[in-house]
Amino acid sequence: MTDLIRSWVESANAPDTDFPLNNLPYGVFSTGDGTMPRCGVAIGDKIFDLCAAEGEDLVTPSGQPVFDVPYWNDFMELGPDAWAELRARLTELLSEGAEPRPDLLVEQADVRMQLPFQVAEYTDFYASKNHAFNVGSMFRGPENALPPNWLHIPIGYNGRASSVVVSGTPVTRPHGQLKGPDDAAPRFGPSQRFDIELEMGAVVGTASDGPISVAEAFENIFGYVLLNDWSARDIQAWEYQPLGPFQSKATATTISPWIVTAAALEPFRTSTPERETELLPYLAEPAPMLYDIALEVGLTPQGGQETVLSRTNARELYYSAAQQLAHHTSSGCPMRVGDLLGSGTISGPTKDSRGSLLELSWGGKEPITLDTGETRSFVEDGDTLTLRGAAIGDGYRIGFGACTGQLMPARKPAH
Amino acid sequence: MTDLIRSWVESANAPDTDFPLNNLPYGVFSTGDGTMPRCGVAIGDKIFDLCAAEGEDLVTPSGQPVFDVPYWNDFMELGPDAWAELRARLTELLSEGAEPRPDLLVEQADVRMQLPFQVAEYTDFYASKNHAFNVGSMFRGPENALPPNWLHIPIGYNGRASSVVVSGTPVTRPHGQLKGPDDAAPRFGPSQRFDIELEMGAVVGTASDGPISVAEAFENIFGYVLLNDWSARDIQAWEYQPLGPFQSKATATTISPWIVTAAALEPFRTSTPERETELLPYLAEPAPMLYDIALEVGLTPQGGQETVLSRTNARELYYSAAQQLAHHTSSGCPMRVGDLLGSGTISGPTKDSRGSLLELSWGGKEPITLDTGETRSFVEDGDTLTLRGAAIGDGYRIGFGACTGQLMPARKPAH
Repeated sequence: MTDLIRSWVESANAPDTDFPLNNLPYGVFSTGDGTMPRCGVAIGDKIFDLCAAEGEDLVTPSGQPVFDVPYWNDFMELGPDAWAELRARLTELLSEGAEPRPDLLVEQADVRMQLPFQVAEYTDFYASKNHAFNVGSMFRGPENALPPNWLHIPIGYNGRASSVVVSGTPVTRPHGQLKGPDDAAPRFGPSQRFDIELEMGAVVGTASDGPISVAEAFENIFGYVLLNDWSARDIQAWEYQPLGPFQSKATATTISPWIVTAAALEPFRTSTPERETELLPYLAEPAPMLYDIALEVGLTPQGGQETVLSRTNARELYYSAAQQLAHHTSSGCPMRVGDLLGSGTISGPTKDSRGSLLELSWGGKEPITLDTGETRSFVEDGDTLTLRGAAIGDGYRIGFGACTGQLMPARKPAH
Repeated sequence: MTDLIRSWVESANAPDTDFPLNNLPYGVFSTGDGTMPRCGVAIGDKIFDLCAAEGEDLVTPSGQPVFDVPYWNDFMELGPDAWAELRARLTELLSEGAEPRPDLLVEQADVRMQLPFQVAEYTDFYASKNHAFNVGSMFRGPENALPPNWLHIPIGYNGRASSVVVSGTPVTRPHGQLKGPDDAAPRFGPSQRFDIELEMGAVVGTASDGPISVAEAFENIFGYVLLNDWSARDIQAWEYQPLGPFQSKATATTISPWIVTAAALEPFRTSTPERETELLPYLAEPAPMLYDIALEVGLTPQGGQETVLSRTNARELYYSAAQQLAHHTSSGCPMRVGDLLGSGTISGPTKDSRGSLLELSWGGKEPITLDTGETRSFVEDGDTLTLRGAAIGDGYRIGFGACTGQLMPARKPAH
């Protein structure tokens, strides 16, 4: 474990900031003064304006500008050497002892954050064993809870990239086909079991055009975001057989505004849990490829106070993002810069470490009580859901910032 | 039914050409002489070079050039009025009696066709009842063949856009996890049951940002392609529960090089089959929205002669692309210009009208005999599979050109 690296940005040295100099997460911000959205790096409660720094040749990752655009894809395309060089250069520029450049800082409180990258395609996995067991128990009964392939395959499905939004974007309760087990026929109406999923997202930074190994996959991942895969459980239950989730997962997926790089998380690597069944060689991990990242989810009713619903950790995952990415390419599937891989809901073994309301309220049978005394089985209109995450170092934390979204009432349908 | 519109391009007046003046399908071609790939329209055995025509202001759909790029997305963005204007202008320019401009023509035989559009995202449906019943019978037994939701929902799943390739691109046999019903554990190896799926693809030409009606969806579709959704049945059987097909469908999806516009297919509109169960109102079709398009698939062994395996028709689909697109947006899912919607395998009611080898050979139990005397259960290395399709008018046909791909042997795996 490394120590805190002190910065001339004083707020970056506070032990409770998500954004010490050790972190340097990448985002896209707009200032609302008529300038275009552009790339920046979080430092304490400020953003270091990379577009302005590039304009002064303080950072020059390429012969062409790459930070005057509202996405990090162009920079990711430059490859791992450029990634390492930028991190080293930013550490130099922002360290205590370097010439302070407050004129290149913007207050985080004054900006609007945007999606940090163009999502090429979005894949969502199912890599937490506790989650798979819990959900399987509810959908198929405990005896069929864990699918027979689960211990062999990092199961995933293709999600919908166009539905990925940045933290702070309101989410509208969807309509869909709903059919209870005792209903003769489905009806079309607003989802009554709208849920969240607490996940990590891995951002692919290097393209590939055929099968790659787990080790190569690990190197191809640029960084990580928090990810809330909003899910309409009632739509899902009726639609998912036999081709998997579709409209139940297409309303919105919210990600944190900051990409925390794999480099920043390097001191927090940890191994996947002991295998219950030996994996096929193409999925074997040559080194620890999970991260120890504390995660939590909070629910704030409209006008009310937040209740933390769950606390868990990214090390609960049975498969790492590197294993998922290697499996994703096993068929020859080409991957592109900006592909986003959701981990699947991360649930711990205890009730207070479950990553979805479906599990926390056990399908609505055991509503949870908020600190205000209200109860919840699923998300209600006006509720704001917030994910937080941080790798905890010695006197510092590598945080992601909040990943938040408020649920708006359903709209009138189109027909 | 309209009549053939005669062109000064003589080959466009032949009754057996796929590309009479009534068609005007859009593609992207490169000539291999150092010029960039660019947009063109097929006419007889020629291509009318739209980039060159735009350079002379013969076609001016926008204040900016839109045909000097290797995709039709920029043109689609201009919207339905521009689509109609271009079609009218091309009909004028290429009609018999107009000034012949052979200098703007390129021989189709001399060019290499490219993907005609940037695929934003790719969704694959399951809209042929005969196919769903056949496959369901094999995967789950005849008593559970048609899933309970099938008559209510145009079932679909998100596919992988990065794997979409243009006709002529070789396809490599994929590796994957394979587990027979009697195997104790899966193994990793080349798929032994690699298959095709004969489909139509709908190209979304107008973006939407929330639920749209079936009527709006119909208007938002720019055109159609032939689509072969290569499928590894053995990988699929082991992976697909509970989240649907993933790596089994991620090796490649081949589309025809020509987008046949909805306008060209307008005289061939036909109704979906009689409903067995009344659809929910959001899926009701206000008018006929299927097309009468004859389809066939042929298999050519390496160095051998083609056998036509199956002949079917796009009117066999139970759900139209408009119904699929409306359902796709029902959750609020944003759609983008360049989204591709596969119809699902199109199988007719008879054995010789099935759209996949899985069905034709009944899971390999009834191998089919080729004209050469060889047999096939699934695709073998070196086989070339070719889809063809055309709406048949009175003395002319609105064709798609061939959608073809040859299967190459599996590569050594990555690990």
